[in-house]
Amino acid sequence: MQDIERLYRDLEYRFTDVQLLSRALTHRSKSTLNYERLEFLGDSVLGFVVAQWFYHQFPGASEGTLSRMRASVVRKERLADVARRIGLSDWLLLGEGEQRSGGFQRDSILADSLEAVIGAIQLDAGLDAARQFIIRHFDEILSDINPDTVRKDPKTRLQEALQRRGLPVPDYTIVSVSGPPHEQLFEVACEVAGEPETFTAVGPSRRRAEQDAAKKALAKIAS
Amino acid sequence: MQDIERLYRDLEYRFTDVQLLSRALTHRSKSTLNYERLEFLGDSVLGFVVAQWFYHQFPGASEGTLSRMRASVVRKERLADVARRIGLSDWLLLGEGEQRSGGFQRDSILADSLEAVIGAIQLDAGLDAARQFIIRHFDEILSDINPDTVRKDPKTRLQEALQRRGLPVPDYTIVSVSGPPHEQLFEVACEVAGEPETFTAVGPSRRRAEQDAAKKALAKIAS
Repeated sequence: MQDIERLYRDLEYRFTDVQLLSRALTHRSKSTLNYERLEFLGDSVLGFVVAQWFYHQFPGASEGTLSRMRASVVRKERLADVARRIGLSDWLLLGEGEQRSGGFQRDSILADSLEAVIGAIQLDAGLDAARQFIIRHFDEILSDINPDTVRKDPKTRLQEALQRRGLPVPDYTIVSVSGPPHEQLFEVACEVAGEPETFTAVGPSRRRAEQDAAKKALAKIAS
Repeated sequence: MQDIERLYRDLEYRFTDVQLLSRALTHRSKSTLNYERLEFLGDSVLGFVVAQWFYHQFPGASEGTLSRMRASVVRKERLADVARRIGLSDWLLLGEGEQRSGGFQRDSILADSLEAVIGAIQLDAGLDAARQFIIRHFDEILSDINPDTVRKDPKTRLQEALQRRGLPVPDYTIVSVSGPPHEQLFEVACEVAGEPETFTAVGPSRRRAEQDAAKKALAKIAS
């Protein structure tokens, strides 16, 4: 690898076993000795470190809030941002096809490789080293996220709003499914006790359509 | 708590801070000072320890196999079994309603409480103590699970069977959705290249119906 000192500087971590690092940067399109197993390990290290962090930072936060905070950190897009800031895309080892199609800029590859780097550091120097790496590179994200910034999804908010009023949970029904395979559209209806209007929405998945229908119901109820 | 020495013996762990243990056994129906936050923490400890265990035990296992092995350990039913063997149900602190309806035997409560105990041990004495607790009590499960015992789901197996033959991935379409809300039934069709027959199945969710349709396609292809 060219000028690995620069990478160590950007990682703010120096590997004892450089092969672990190289493995963490190798996509399966390049070699069967790729980052996938390290990614599996790193994902669980990251999950634990972030869980522990929020657990201690927010002693008053509920389990649901803690889960949402963690989910908001470990989202693919966030991980890819961190990977880009470190400059991992300059170092990814991709097969030719992936290289041509711009694989080093793809969120999923960047996110997976970052998790693999975390797994590699855990193997190279233990959990504390991996924790330090995470806290350092996720510093901004970890400070931005708090119980107020992680909002519940519309379905949850609608259900809670109804419960506060002593009303039953809403009813969701699929009205229709249309369109060709792979591009099916779901039309969903949401019915709310005491509300004559039926709230419908269409989306590329049942879940998305339900969330949108719930959003409409919420807007009406709150008005 | 009555005869806490017995519980320590069954846990094979002695708490320094007994309040952590008591919190880990308290359901939200009993108190707002309940196990939910500890469960959040314990879940991530368990995930990391089990991931690490399989990673080192099976150096040849792919990321997909490792994920399936881990999922098969942390399933609610397995965790509830471990909790029962430890005898946690004798110690759960439940509200009256939950007590009357047999909450100490419910899988979800037992599983969550076990995760909370793991989180509590991690706080009480650190990750190594939590790891020892997990390895000891999951010993049998961990030795039973290997790459051969965790089977891929039918959709994955069908896709792989087709790929081995150089055929494209199957097409899944929702044929109809019927039935009243909460009991909607999904009819799904699975089409496979080069196979005139359409494989259909009906199920309580799209996913379940797709898996059943894939199973039918697999049976036909393999015949």
